[in-house]
Amino acid sequence: MQPFLDYINQHQDQFIDELKPFCAQPSISTTGEGLADMAEIVRQKMLDLGATVHTFIPGVGAPPIVYATLGDGPKTLLIYNHYDVQPADSIELWDSPPFEPTIRDGKIYGRGVADNKGHLIGRIQAIRTWQETMGKLPCRINWFIEGEEEMGSTHLESFCLDHPELLQADGCVWEMGSTNDAGEAMIHLGAKGMLYVELSIRSLSGDQHSSRATIAPSAAWRLIWALNTLKAPDETILIEGFYDHVVPPSETDLAMLKTIPFDMNGYAKRLGADKLVGGVSSGLEAITRHVFQPTCTICGIESGYTGPGLKTVTPATAKAKVDFRLVPDLKPKLVVRLLRQHLDKHGFDDVNIEVLGGEHTGKSDPDCDLVKDTIKSVQQVYGVETPAVYPMMPASGPVWAVATSHGTPLVGFGAGYPGIQIHAPNENLRLSDYFQAIRMIGQFLANFGIEDKG
Amino acid sequence: MQPFLDYINQHQDQFIDELKPFCAQPSISTTGEGLADMAEIVRQKMLDLGATVHTFIPGVGAPPIVYATLGDGPKTLLIYNHYDVQPADSIELWDSPPFEPTIRDGKIYGRGVADNKGHLIGRIQAIRTWQETMGKLPCRINWFIEGEEEMGSTHLESFCLDHPELLQADGCVWEMGSTNDAGEAMIHLGAKGMLYVELSIRSLSGDQHSSRATIAPSAAWRLIWALNTLKAPDETILIEGFYDHVVPPSETDLAMLKTIPFDMNGYAKRLGADKLVGGVSSGLEAITRHVFQPTCTICGIESGYTGPGLKTVTPATAKAKVDFRLVPDLKPKLVVRLLRQHLDKHGFDDVNIEVLGGEHTGKSDPDCDLVKDTIKSVQQVYGVETPAVYPMMPASGPVWAVATSHGTPLVGFGAGYPGIQIHAPNENLRLSDYFQAIRMIGQFLANFGIEDKG
Repeated sequence: MQPFLDYINQHQDQFIDELKPFCAQPSISTTGEGLADMAEIVRQKMLDLGATVHTFIPGVGAPPIVYATLGDGPKTLLIYNHYDVQPADSIELWDSPPFEPTIRDGKIYGRGVADNKGHLIGRIQAIRTWQETMGKLPCRINWFIEGEEEMGSTHLESFCLDHPELLQADGCVWEMGSTNDAGEAMIHLGAKGMLYVELSIRSLSGDQHSSRATIAPSAAWRLIWALNTLKAPDETILIEGFYDHVVPPSETDLAMLKTIPFDMNGYAKRLGADKLVGGVSSGLEAITRHVFQPTCTICGIESGYTGPGLKTVTPATAKAKVDFRLVPDLKPKLVVRLLRQHLDKHGFDDVNIEVLGGEHTGKSDPDCDLVKDTIKSVQQVYGVETPAVYPMMPASGPVWAVATSHGTPLVGFGAGYPGIQIHAPNENLRLSDYFQAIRMIGQFLANFGIEDKG
Repeated sequence: MQPFLDYINQHQDQFIDELKPFCAQPSISTTGEGLADMAEIVRQKMLDLGATVHTFIPGVGAPPIVYATLGDGPKTLLIYNHYDVQPADSIELWDSPPFEPTIRDGKIYGRGVADNKGHLIGRIQAIRTWQETMGKLPCRINWFIEGEEEMGSTHLESFCLDHPELLQADGCVWEMGSTNDAGEAMIHLGAKGMLYVELSIRSLSGDQHSSRATIAPSAAWRLIWALNTLKAPDETILIEGFYDHVVPPSETDLAMLKTIPFDMNGYAKRLGADKLVGGVSSGLEAITRHVFQPTCTICGIESGYTGPGLKTVTPATAKAKVDFRLVPDLKPKLVVRLLRQHLDKHGFDDVNIEVLGGEHTGKSDPDCDLVKDTIKSVQQVYGVETPAVYPMMPASGPVWAVATSHGTPLVGFGAGYPGIQIHAPNENLRLSDYFQAIRMIGQFLANFGIEDKG
């Protein structure tokens, strides 16, 4: 692998120069801004690698999937990435413009540099480096790159279930990964599921003078009372039947969690929080909760007058965006049904539920070859004897639709670190992590495609 | 009074023409837009009537008070109005631009036409009509016109307590009034108090990816749980000690409430509500609750992402604007203290309280001459034998600071009707009500200033 590693060291400036325009192109799936342009940039990069490229539109109005195939070999590797990013608000909290990638103190800042454009371009650089230094790729690569991951991959599930031939493989490398609090590379073997809903209510035909609140129903209060029935201040989710579907972690899962160092107080401090929630009193408790507990999160709430000063109104409408992170066997449709039943039972049949996104959980078998190859690669590249392995990552993605529903196991690893600020202002990636992730992909290709594991 | 009434009938077009520019001038105390220009327009109108005019700045950054004196006589009448209006949002819900007064179906639409510029200009027209047709005014008039009523008259209380000589009078006519569901003119003898606070919380140094909600504290949830402790779904306010300070209505109060026809179902229908809240089951129960119950209203709430589509964040900050309408003897400072104690006791010492406005309640003695003159005038002008008399109006205003704290009783009557949409889109006034209110002021001046009541 020495020529491979030398090439990376010799081309660091070029690899940074090619990262910048990739991240400067807005591609916000929430608003649709720049998606078609970004898909074309990705398609061109794949053609430059010598790939055969197809694009698919997975549903009406959906951004294209870029599907690239290259290399050959007895084994097939699926790679999953996405070219869309989160919205950049709150813009005023960014220290440099979100779509002008900027280097400061060895980090590159910009929307999408970590999640996950830096990972996508880094993998492109790794494959080009392989081609330049090692020649023929050691396996077939099918690369699946979608454009609505940050919107919950709304159209992906039905497309993927209809196209198993694109997705069946010996293993899948997921979009990204990260080092942990201790600075050690982590591996994850799947992801939580998700349900994203908008709850809304109308109590009046229009806003009314607040003096009428004596007898006029308030949408804001109705929504607050409804939300309050969903989760208790101790973080227990109160939806009837919800926990009946939660599968507790297995012995193997718990053993893996023990490989994950987690600095509870350091984590709270980095968040700017007084303490972590959920009654956790050790790093192991915190990480167990983080990986295996479902969530019910208010991503946004709005009602009435929210500008400066006073306005005295009884609001007619209120809405909240609520995100559930799901663990086995909580499925999106099941949670919608439980939520509807719960709201009705508590007298909130006036609260409307609109489903904006849903994804199933997906977990790989920790004993499969793909996982062994990955652990070995981390040991070789990062020099870590016992890498931290997450049975699932706490975040979500279409792991089930893309990989596990087709029998394809998946692993995630990559260039992140705990301060990357994904989905938040000042998203960033350390340049040293970016180069290390390129090295890691090369080593992984060697282990996955070439080595005989007997 | 016939020449007075004839003059009004002959000058209807002119009175409408003069109403329009008065309402076309924005004067939004919440943002400060147009306040100085509006104060100057009012000052000029008063000079045109022959008044002596002073302006006062009641506090740093406050809009001017226009104080006009005119006429002479053994008795002194204080008139209170304000020249500021509420913000016009949500602009898109207006059928015509809020600052382009527009006549449709016998109504004039625009921000402030009802609350209370139509009332102010109507009173100016009444006095001019008196001067043109009846000659010398029958009493001294001291006219107090402020510019921050819609912001809770923040600077007014200390100014008024420092200047009793401007405010002591035999009676005060308050800013406005209305007809009721039955189309009959109403009188009110005071107003509720108010406390307006902004509750805010920060749980994190910045928004975080929502997958971290397993262990990261959410400002949105904290605020919702805190608000939920303030009021129950049955509308009971849960702040400890709150109701201990509520004085129940007297026998006289209850007798007055019986003069008020109130169509419970019609009211709900007009609001577009399924039903009224608070468990009311008759018009009398509804009106009793409306006049004598305090409120706790969320005028606005905001946290996290509220734009289109999905964004998956755990919000770092949340805020709510909360308006309490107060009845005797709930005073603003007392309610702030009770609220702070309540939040602390329930574990919400992380919720910050910012006071944005406060006003004391004020009620007149129903047996005073001012009230008798008013009832007689309503009987004469509106032909109503037993006018509906509200012991207090459910809305608020600086009645205590301006009038009752100086021993000046007050009455309110005017051109409103139940569909005026004050503080809401499509605020309007019926033109026929506008002219009737001008007639009413003339009759009231005659009864108050001239007649001997033995």
